Amino acid sequence: MERIHVTYAFFGENPKEIADLIRVEQTIEFPYELAPSWIQDQVVGKIEEITSSDKTNHLITISYNPDVAGGELTQLLNVLWGNASLFPGIKIVDLKLPDLILNRFKGPRFGISGLRKIFKADTRPLIATALKPMGSDAKTLADMARTLALAGFDLIKDDHSLANQPWATWKERVALISAAVKEANEITGGNSAYVPSLNMPFDQVIDAAHSAKDLGASGLLVLPGITGFDSLRVIAEDETLALPILGHPAMLGSLVTSKEVGIAHGIVFGTFMRLAGADISIFPNIGGRFSFTAEQCLEIADRSREKLGSLNPMTIAPAGGMTLDRIPEMIEMYGKETALLIGGALSRGNLADSAARMCEMVRSY
Amino acid sequence: MERIHVTYAFFGENPKEIADLIRVEQTIEFPYELAPSWIQDQVVGKIEEITSSDKTNHLITISYNPDVAGGELTQLLNVLWGNASLFPGIKIVDLKLPDLILNRFKGPRFGISGLRKIFKADTRPLIATALKPMGSDAKTLADMARTLALAGFDLIKDDHSLANQPWATWKERVALISAAVKEANEITGGNSAYVPSLNMPFDQVIDAAHSAKDLGASGLLVLPGITGFDSLRVIAEDETLALPILGHPAMLGSLVTSKEVGIAHGIVFGTFMRLAGADISIFPNIGGRFSFTAEQCLEIADRSREKLGSLNPMTIAPAGGMTLDRIPEMIEMYGKETALLIGGALSRGNLADSAARMCEMVRSY
Repeated sequence: MERIHVTYAFFGENPKEIADLIRVEQTIEFPYELAPSWIQDQVVGKIEEITSSDKTNHLITISYNPDVAGGELTQLLNVLWGNASLFPGIKIVDLKLPDLILNRFKGPRFGISGLRKIFKADTRPLIATALKPMGSDAKTLADMARTLALAGFDLIKDDHSLANQPWATWKERVALISAAVKEANEITGGNSAYVPSLNMPFDQVIDAAHSAKDLGASGLLVLPGITGFDSLRVIAEDETLALPILGHPAMLGSLVTSKEVGIAHGIVFGTFMRLAGADISIFPNIGGRFSFTAEQCLEIADRSREKLGSLNPMTIAPAGGMTLDRIPEMIEMYGKETALLIGGALSRGNLADSAARMCEMVRSY
Repeated sequence: MERIHVTYAFFGENPKEIADLIRVEQTIEFPYELAPSWIQDQVVGKIEEITSSDKTNHLITISYNPDVAGGELTQLLNVLWGNASLFPGIKIVDLKLPDLILNRFKGPRFGISGLRKIFKADTRPLIATALKPMGSDAKTLADMARTLALAGFDLIKDDHSLANQPWATWKERVALISAAVKEANEITGGNSAYVPSLNMPFDQVIDAAHSAKDLGASGLLVLPGITGFDSLRVIAEDETLALPILGHPAMLGSLVTSKEVGIAHGIVFGTFMRLAGADISIFPNIGGRFSFTAEQCLEIADRSREKLGSLNPMTIAPAGGMTLDRIPEMIEMYGKETALLIGGALSRGNLADSAARMCEMVRSY
């Protein structure tokens, strides 16, 4: 396969008409019949297949010349969904990328096996949590992080909403928490990673990533729904950082929650995150506070792990209101190639006790 | 008003329950009852009002302490819609920002009156078009731009999909087109602006903006749905650029097209674009290739022009498959504080003739 293949579900009548609209809109945005014939042939997308299950339910597959994506993630996303996002009733449900495109991306630097080495977790799931609630001062968050690191957590991330609030500014928070986690690692001989949030202004994201590393952070949390998927790619590819990258779903819900418009869950939280280079993709698990179904969650797991050129597979972190009693069920559902992320529930009762209990449950499963 | 007020439409039962979920999710992401009482009081959002038109149609207004947005557009967007985007059945339909937030943003540098001065267009609509189709080489696009500038267009923008394709790479294209438009301006004594697309990788956007200005571009097209709203803000605020900024809707459709999830059209294409600093917000007009209704389009116009702290009003550019015969109707619908953007339709017949005709129609209206 040498072309990009996109399958759109279309909910409406006359699928051929919308297919012609899409293949032109996503490329030349110009009256087809006025374009030179070589452009019609080589630049405009081609309808590969239309299948209809009834009058208003269709699957349209369009293929694109990889040259229209121009070698860049930004323009690849634009070809797939830029102006098409403005049409009613179409949703991307399948995506196949040719090696010519895949070879341009480095993908997850560590992937599943790289993270297993870092955290000396040969077969078990990774153990992850989040520092919260917003409003806590930097010292309180650092104390919390120390407790969690002493308990043996692999990944201790900022709540993604922690930015530069007056209660704990970014730099003060990252410095104190990094130091606390380092201290705990020296006591335990372990390797807990503090992962600050890079929910930062456009012109500060890269500097903040480097500052975070300098201050002692061992991973970085990026919010591609706010700073763009390409910000994640740039941070993940930076050889002078070379840290595990966690991708957070903030604002990306709008790409997936509607049944009739948007992009399938697996493509956004699996393929896009992985192309951009996330080592871990965080998404809201079924049965938490959010809307995802088991099928949608498993689609994310599949896309994170399936063959995708030579890109490393990506660890998934189903999250959002998870509790300790769900650990066995989550491992059964997703397997052990998973980061189990439990946040607020650890603060019910004594944090140190809950943290120890979670680590024990996962390690002994 | 000192707090951020967000009104969410909720399509479902038990609005009080989802309201409590949202006000906690968008702030502390932590079990409310476990948070210290001062955090419950000062950090968590407050339910201001719930009104219900029937069992599954509700309006929920929640107010937030402006400190939770931490002074930054990235975190402001996150407070409004970050994790809430992952809930089913909620849509932001109204937004009121306090001066404390608004004062942090510069908004459109030129706004409506500034653009009128640049283009010596005291009362008429601005006349805008796009260079296309993709596949054309840089010289062909430059010839097209020269023709359009000679005809008297105010704004000649790249098609937003023009990136770094092999047919015309970014730098070659921007150099040749800038020179062609400059030449034409010298002949006409006019002031046509060439506006290249900054649909570029995250780490190249700022440099590309400066290169574009150095090469002779007189405006910049930013795609906040791909590079982030904050990329637009940074470019718009850059005093060493100080060029008119056009915001393009690519990929932003997913925020608005569903009736039951997302954010209202006026807030995305009006308020967000204006906060970030777009001088012109491009959106798909009713009756073109896209899905927006007259009501949604007028909501964008209202939000672009209403009082918003001391921010300049923003010029709107309804577009997407517009034709010359729609000019009178568009002026009647939106008024003259509008940029009329017609692209591909100018290439039906002779480009110079169509271009001259469009300029004549607008100037003589």
